[in-house]
Amino acid sequence: MALYFIGLGLYDERDITLKGLETVRRCDKIFAEFYTSLLAGTTMERIEKLIGKSIVKLNREDVELNFEKIVLPEAKKKDVAFLTAGDPMVATTHADLRIRAKKAGVNSYVIHAPSIYSAVAITGLQIYKFGKSATVSYPEKNWFPTSHYEVIRENKRLGLHTLLFLDIKAEQNRYMTANEAMEILLQIEEMKKAEVFTPETLVVVLARAGSLNPTIRAGYVKEMINEDFGRQPHVLIVPGRLHIVEAEYLVEFAGAPKEILEEV
Amino acid sequence: MALYFIGLGLYDERDITLKGLETVRRCDKIFAEFYTSLLAGTTMERIEKLIGKSIVKLNREDVELNFEKIVLPEAKKKDVAFLTAGDPMVATTHADLRIRAKKAGVNSYVIHAPSIYSAVAITGLQIYKFGKSATVSYPEKNWFPTSHYEVIRENKRLGLHTLLFLDIKAEQNRYMTANEAMEILLQIEEMKKAEVFTPETLVVVLARAGSLNPTIRAGYVKEMINEDFGRQPHVLIVPGRLHIVEAEYLVEFAGAPKEILEEV
Repeated sequence: MALYFIGLGLYDERDITLKGLETVRRCDKIFAEFYTSLLAGTTMERIEKLIGKSIVKLNREDVELNFEKIVLPEAKKKDVAFLTAGDPMVATTHADLRIRAKKAGVNSYVIHAPSIYSAVAITGLQIYKFGKSATVSYPEKNWFPTSHYEVIRENKRLGLHTLLFLDIKAEQNRYMTANEAMEILLQIEEMKKAEVFTPETLVVVLARAGSLNPTIRAGYVKEMINEDFGRQPHVLIVPGRLHIVEAEYLVEFAGAPKEILEEV
Repeated sequence: MALYFIGLGLYDERDITLKGLETVRRCDKIFAEFYTSLLAGTTMERIEKLIGKSIVKLNREDVELNFEKIVLPEAKKKDVAFLTAGDPMVATTHADLRIRAKKAGVNSYVIHAPSIYSAVAITGLQIYKFGKSATVSYPEKNWFPTSHYEVIRENKRLGLHTLLFLDIKAEQNRYMTANEAMEILLQIEEMKKAEVFTPETLVVVLARAGSLNPTIRAGYVKEMINEDFGRQPHVLIVPGRLHIVEAEYLVEFAGAPKEILEEV
């Protein structure tokens, strides 16, 4: 009797680890949530077929408000799997669920999986040089969040790269594109005028990380904003100071303009 | 004919993804390197048994100096796997190898795996609040590196957490413990006296990430320095400002002193 938080990884049903697959196959009851992260290269049916068992899909309300009613009673009687895209504890919600499980007397375990936090290294940007990360949210009627702009500003000052996650509104099937994120950041630049994110800023886009042929593109915002990066999920990276090997990699694998080699 | 960089993940041979395992089984020739990262819960024999093929183990010199002689000629004729612990592109060396492969006309692909960069979230520390990471190196006769101390200082100033990797000298079978890292940091504190890493500093240790029962401990340096965290690999984390959920998690899962709840 325990609760297993099991990561599904980045892209399709074959991004789970052997340990994760063996564990979920041994579980008596399987839940999954897909509202914190998008697993674009597969379907719930294909995951169920791989596991050989059916999955109960939970929405945000089920997880955040009704975890004690829906999930924990099962985990007191049997082995229960809780599947999530990416690496499970990366979503802060899941760390909170582990606390709630413990308080209810339920043991839990975590089985890791590939995450965008390390996969972003496929852009050639050195991972130890990433500063704080942030999320670009859709502006709403009375709410135009700009904290991600400040994160970029602070990281740039320190020469560090910024990984930007893009808003997910799973219930509306709405996943922000890198193009939309650039639009939003240019609007904030218009308001703040701190030269943090301008048409001349070098950015990197990584789309469909975890697939064998992800899109990796680097260039200036003025050009990148009109490019088609293919299907979501996208992440947007604003590089800090580039090392020569980083610049070279961006030229070789992301079509970056060769002039960036002269600026390092 | 291509070169596949395939991650083995964090701890044992079952931390590879299904995609990684299927790909390596299709490859005609398999190389692996274990000097940038330690896969503590398995052996090369067990990995070979799982794959069903033999592996050629490469040392640092083979990889960094003789990649063009040893690996690339094979990858021009057949499908070649290059196995690494963790997620492949996290080690900056591997990004450089991908550039060298491309220049030699060899296509390469990356298959991700669990990495300490996301697995560290199992400590309950929120991953977007990690700043730049750093490595604590063994001091040498005429060289006492202190840059990691400066990274902690800068992250703390911003309220951010610092993930510290610990030195690996694979050829001497020497893997730094969190205790050794704390000793080194206290020595640097003695020299710099900037109140960055003192006996009163709260630290978190994560040992054997990726195993089902990793050691997660939080406490003050003066106590933690004498604790036994079990076998390596260890990482050491110096938390920045804690959110209440982070503090609660550290108390519940890492034995942190309850007084940290009052400081948030």
